[in-house]
Amino acid sequence: MIGNSSLGPGAEFDAIRRMLETWGPRASGIGDDAAIARLPRGDALIASVDSAVENRHFKSDWLSPREIGYRAIAAALSDLAAMAARPLGVLVAMAIPDAWRGRLDDIAAGVGDAVEAAGTHVLGGNLTDATELSITTTALGSAFSPLVRGGANLGDHVYVTGRLGAPASAIRRLLAGDSPGAFRERFAHPVPRLLEARWLADHGATSAIDISDGFVADLRHVAHASGVAIEIEGGTVPCFPDVPAQLAVESGEEYELIVTAPGSLDVGEFQSRFKLPLTRVGGVVGGRPGHVDVRGIAVANARGHDHFSR
Amino acid sequence: MIGNSSLGPGAEFDAIRRMLETWGPRASGIGDDAAIARLPRGDALIASVDSAVENRHFKSDWLSPREIGYRAIAAALSDLAAMAARPLGVLVAMAIPDAWRGRLDDIAAGVGDAVEAAGTHVLGGNLTDATELSITTTALGSAFSPLVRGGANLGDHVYVTGRLGAPASAIRRLLAGDSPGAFRERFAHPVPRLLEARWLADHGATSAIDISDGFVADLRHVAHASGVAIEIEGGTVPCFPDVPAQLAVESGEEYELIVTAPGSLDVGEFQSRFKLPLTRVGGVVGGRPGHVDVRGIAVANARGHDHFSR
Repeated sequence: MIGNSSLGPGAEFDAIRRMLETWGPRASGIGDDAAIARLPRGDALIASVDSAVENRHFKSDWLSPREIGYRAIAAALSDLAAMAARPLGVLVAMAIPDAWRGRLDDIAAGVGDAVEAAGTHVLGGNLTDATELSITTTALGSAFSPLVRGGANLGDHVYVTGRLGAPASAIRRLLAGDSPGAFRERFAHPVPRLLEARWLADHGATSAIDISDGFVADLRHVAHASGVAIEIEGGTVPCFPDVPAQLAVESGEEYELIVTAPGSLDVGEFQSRFKLPLTRVGGVVGGRPGHVDVRGIAVANARGHDHFSR
Repeated sequence: MIGNSSLGPGAEFDAIRRMLETWGPRASGIGDDAAIARLPRGDALIASVDSAVENRHFKSDWLSPREIGYRAIAAALSDLAAMAARPLGVLVAMAIPDAWRGRLDDIAAGVGDAVEAAGTHVLGGNLTDATELSITTTALGSAFSPLVRGGANLGDHVYVTGRLGAPASAIRRLLAGDSPGAFRERFAHPVPRLLEARWLADHGATSAIDISDGFVADLRHVAHASGVAIEIEGGTVPCFPDVPAQLAVESGEEYELIVTAPGSLDVGEFQSRFKLPLTRVGGVVGGRPGHVDVRGIAVANARGHDHFSR
């Protein structure tokens, strides 16, 4: 646990001190063995952990140190959005190789950007050296009625926020040594859909998941957990400009939301409130539980992200 | 976030499935993007994160894979003890190199041992590959009146649980290529003093910290946070058999507790209830805030643990 009032001498403590200066009011309650946070009365705790490891989740020449920090936190907060939770704060465990020490302040600045954008705080963390850069973020939040994967009902419609495919397109171009162009921003600065998720939960959504593995892979998680089948009309999947539909449905680390909801959901009100597309892409149907049928798109590799099978 | 109901194909999901089998009822609420936990009414959330990295915090030939898993979790839970919190559960983020994959089940068994010993659960986690083994544990708990470092009052007595020095003695012997003998068990299986801390908080303790950096280094954290000085009578420090006092006051990763409390604390009742020594080692005095005076022991390196200065 990093501490403020308890800092002693030494390089580790100096590094922590500088991070706390960088974060200013965006860090809170730091200085004891653990953070203390109060949940709104009646809310359940929502907690998730997510790691970003160099050369597994990103390459250091693809992103600036500040973007690496931002992206790690934003990705972790997206798990709170998937549960329609209100963020309480994050704990940030960083493993920093010697060669990265000079960039630690920039990484911390990106962490600060991400918590500020989400209206939340750094509640604590841990700092260690390592041979490999990694940032493990615990996202803590609360919800009175969390959305889960298993709530989809027969007859619900399936919706997705935003437009898909930019992160996979960016990675494809970067791997080929090309400039990612317009795709870069969605890869470097994903947006956890926190307010959008709470609005959707308040307006009848029955299940949600954030797209981290890929649109089809994550739909399968919902279908499996809900004991239903899902039918997607391929032509309706909202694609980022210049992205083919087949890549859009496989693109991971989108951090857009898939939700199921009755057809009475007011898509227009959502779109005008959040200036973000909300697209009906299919429906919840009978059939083999866990089955996802995508009409009109050949889904080549819809297994989703599997870090162990590269 | 690892998931149960949502597992798809692939080596990562298979590994998670096996871990969930290993944990059985010691895992709970897994299967969504985030864990859901309920706090006792009126309690605050207590949360901390701690990393155990191979070759930084342990060497793989010093501990069995099962002990590595146990120790990572026990160390993280100790931060809850320092706050007198009741554990809600842990999130376990593991970075597993290829060479360690065959030992993942054993590491998971050790994680299960540690949560069972603490009467708590694995609520979720994350699994990624990496070049270096690391386990980052988020410990989640709750407390109505958390103990903090900053509560020590002038005139309080200073107490410590257990006997100090075995972990440092074990590491010293291991580094010299010798058998750690009787010191090994305290190094391999530290015990988070969870119930002890709650009893102490209920019986008037004013501040607490767990000994992770070292007895003197952690006393300085308390003295600094409380704005007081602390005087220790060196001859009273409880040493593990065959450990010199100088090593005992510098030994880190003890996970014993230092507490301050009025002299009315019933040491006998504590000792008979927990079968664990509770020793008065000094007192809270006026003087330069943050200053710790240890009488009768030359404290050579009381800066405490600093992973960045190896």
